Amino acid sequence: MNQWLKSLKTDTPQEGFELAIKLSQKGVEYTQPSEEIRKKLRPKYSKNADSLILASQVVAINFQTVAAANNYWRDSYKA
Amino acid sequence: MNQWLKSLKTDTPQEGFELAIKLSQKGVEYTQPSEEIRKKLRPKYSKNADSLILASQVVAINFQTVAAANNYWRDSYKA
Amino acid sequence: MNQWLKSLKTDTPQEGFELAIKLSQKGVEYTQPSEEIRKKLRPKYSKNADSLILASQVVAINFQTVAAANNYWRDSYKA
Amino acid sequence: MNQWLKSLKTDTPQEGFELAIKLSQKGVEYTQPSEEIRKKLRPKYSKNADSLILASQVVAINFQTVAAANNYWRDSYKA
Amino acid sequence: MNQWLKSLKTDTPQEGFELAIKLSQKGVEYTQPSEEIRKKLRPKYSKNADSLILASQVVAINFQTVAAANNYWRDSYKA
Amino acid sequence: MNQWLKSLKTDTPQEGFELAIKLSQKGVEYTQPSEEIRKKLRPKYSKNADSLILASQVVAINFQTVAAANNYWRDSYKA
Repeated sequence: MNQWLKSLKTDTPQEGFELAIKLSQKGVEYTQPSEEIRKKLRPKYSKNADSLILASQVVAINFQTVAAANNYWRDSYKA
Repeated sequence: MNQWLKSLKTDTPQEGFELAIKLSQKGVEYTQPSEEIRKKLRPKYSKNADSLILASQVVAINFQTVAAANNYWRDSYKA
Repeated sequence: MNQWLKSLKTDTPQEGFELAIKLSQKGVEYTQPSEEIRKKLRPKYSKNADSLILASQVVAINFQTVAAANNYWRDSYKA
Repeated sequence: MNQWLKSLKTDTPQEGFELAIKLSQKGVEYTQPSEEIRKKLRPKYSKNADSLILASQVVAINFQTVAAANNYWRDSYKA
Repeated sequence: MNQWLKSLKTDTPQEGFELAIKLSQKGVEYTQPSEEIRKKLRPKYSKNADSLILASQVVAINFQTVAAANNYWRDSYKA
Repeated sequence: MNQWLKSLKTDTPQEGFELAIKLSQKGVEYTQPSEEIRKKLRPKYSKNADSLILASQVVAINFQTVAAANNYWRDSYKA
């Protein structure tokens, strides 16, 4: 796969959260590489509350990693 | 998406918990951006015990992150 | 919401575990604020083994946070 | 509830694992205090593979807490 | 139960991963001590993708503990 | 099983993520060693959104471990 992840560092917590979303999507992509199939699945699971909560859970786990990597953006608080 | 997360710092543990709830909701929003669809799903999953427990689990994971970012509000204990 | 969480500090591990239970319940409450609806759900999920195990999992995650916040009550061991 | 958790300290990793099992069971007990009902549920979920895996997951999460509290029993390795 | 866990220390990351598998199995054993019943369940769940993914998740959680206990085998990297 | 995991160290975050995927697959392999059966399961679960999200969750948990082992690749940021 092409390079898609250069660093876990982000400037802000929100960018960190968005990186966590990207990591979560990539976890799906590696298991199902076909964009066509993934697109077909989207309409269904994106209207299923439990799937959405489960997806939010994966984001939360990846956000833990990104937040730790950025030392919780504590240094930017001082600025 | 507009800026919605400036910092993981909160003044109190309870505000930290409420930030964890916001992070959990945002994890859903990024996957299903339509507010209309999310509102339609709400009446059903909010009356399903397993969905509620699952939602509480996402909050718990995000609260771990927020609590660590705030050093568990240990410094405020001294005040 | 009224103040319900002043601190993550507890005197003993057991009180910490009970705080973890409270946090888990609050995660549900924020998603379903109606006490009436929550009470209706209780008889069913509290007799479903998988729901109970899932609830115990949320408690376990919150207990990780509370235990870390209390430095695992190591200082009280010395007393 | 009577005192059931005095400390997270254990002498050995195996005792720590067994404490993690106890914590997992207590997470269920607080949600369903009736021993009678819990006993009725047991025959079914203890023969369901997914329930057993889920239970093992709760134990794993609690074991993370107990292991950290004991500094992974590193000091006993030196003995 | 007889002694089955002496230490969380392993010589290599792979042995650590295999210890994580053992911990995951033990989490099941403590809940369902009958080897006969566990063997009966095996053919079914070992052919169910979701059960296998769930089992892999338990291993991942236990591997976090074992890896931390071994300081991620960083010292062996120097050798 | 033959040696498949020599180290948790990787040069880049992306290689770390790919190692997390490998760890997740290995967690499945240890439970279901037959490649033939695993291949039969693949077409079905790789087209099931919830299975894919669950798989992404396992990857996220393993990535936490790999990222911590690499100190979040902070040293490479300096280069």
